[in-house]
Amino acid sequence: MNAKAILQEHVARITPLSNEQFDYFFSHFTPQSYKKGETIIAPGKAVGHEYFVLHGCLKSFYRTDQGKMFILQFAMPTWWASDYEALYNGTRATTTVDCVTAAEVLRLSGADREKLCREVHAVESFFRWRTNRGYVAAQKRLLSFMHHDARQRYEELLQLYPQLYNVVPKQLIAAYLGVSRETLSRLYQP
Amino acid sequence: MNAKAILQEHVARITPLSNEQFDYFFSHFTPQSYKKGETIIAPGKAVGHEYFVLHGCLKSFYRTDQGKMFILQFAMPTWWASDYEALYNGTRATTTVDCVTAAEVLRLSGADREKLCREVHAVESFFRWRTNRGYVAAQKRLLSFMHHDARQRYEELLQLYPQLYNVVPKQLIAAYLGVSRETLSRLYQP
Repeated sequence: MNAKAILQEHVARITPLSNEQFDYFFSHFTPQSYKKGETIIAPGKAVGHEYFVLHGCLKSFYRTDQGKMFILQFAMPTWWASDYEALYNGTRATTTVDCVTAAEVLRLSGADREKLCREVHAVESFFRWRTNRGYVAAQKRLLSFMHHDARQRYEELLQLYPQLYNVVPKQLIAAYLGVSRETLSRLYQP
Repeated sequence: MNAKAILQEHVARITPLSNEQFDYFFSHFTPQSYKKGETIIAPGKAVGHEYFVLHGCLKSFYRTDQGKMFILQFAMPTWWASDYEALYNGTRATTTVDCVTAAEVLRLSGADREKLCREVHAVESFFRWRTNRGYVAAQKRLLSFMHHDARQRYEELLQLYPQLYNVVPKQLIAAYLGVSRETLSRLYQP
């Protein structure tokens, strides 16, 4: 499937857009290719865009002053990634978004998203429902962090991203779960 | 300030609605009064509404099979509360929403929210931005849970809800922070 078809199928699952509306929506996206390890959003920098993943895998994470990494999200195909706090509020990034693998994405600027939402009511509906789902997912992840142990969080992760184990190095999975590499190895044993 | 003025000021801070648009929007809300301790949403039940707090304080929480309580959110005046996963997906509640204090709220049904979003583009914009902010807050809370210690989370809580300490019993604050009552007492010492 080409980039346009992937995005169209994704949008149609949430909100019906006419072909004309979708063509106009799609015309505001820019395709980008990134190499494995490349940084897309860096802490302290302005954030102008969000990214829809076509191929590959991104991660968004926070690094403490002591260098410890906490992974907020992996973004696999048809997931979106950005530093949304910075993008929505016009502040500087506090998190990093970079490439776990080589990646192909479609980039949309915050200004174009707002323009599209004003111009096309159905696009505003799409973004509202996308964020509704993100909000629910973030609440569930928080609850899971509060009261599930590492093994339960590990099983939830595999349900959420079934292909992840083939794509993502083990130390990143440990950083997502908030456990050490050694604890993850114990969970990984059958 | 009466209920209408409180909601109107809240909406206007996010999205400008004309007086006519706001009157129509407001006509879909129903005022409700609850006693301290009353349950608004119960696990296993269908969820048809969300609640805008006018006076008092609600909490939303999850209780494990072992009876341990984890608080997702306190909802103070001008905050919204529901079990959004259940409300958005039409599934049964997994969390409880109840009243920390006696409370006055405005109730909006999910069906009316969707109708209003279809009929009035500016209302859809309001709800998109409300959820955008909720999403960012949920991500920040998750990150804080992952890498801040109990004292830092306690200080963040007081920043987020400055009036909370006068309103909410200490054991609920402990359940929000994910610490024991004894740990909270140590943090609470100056």
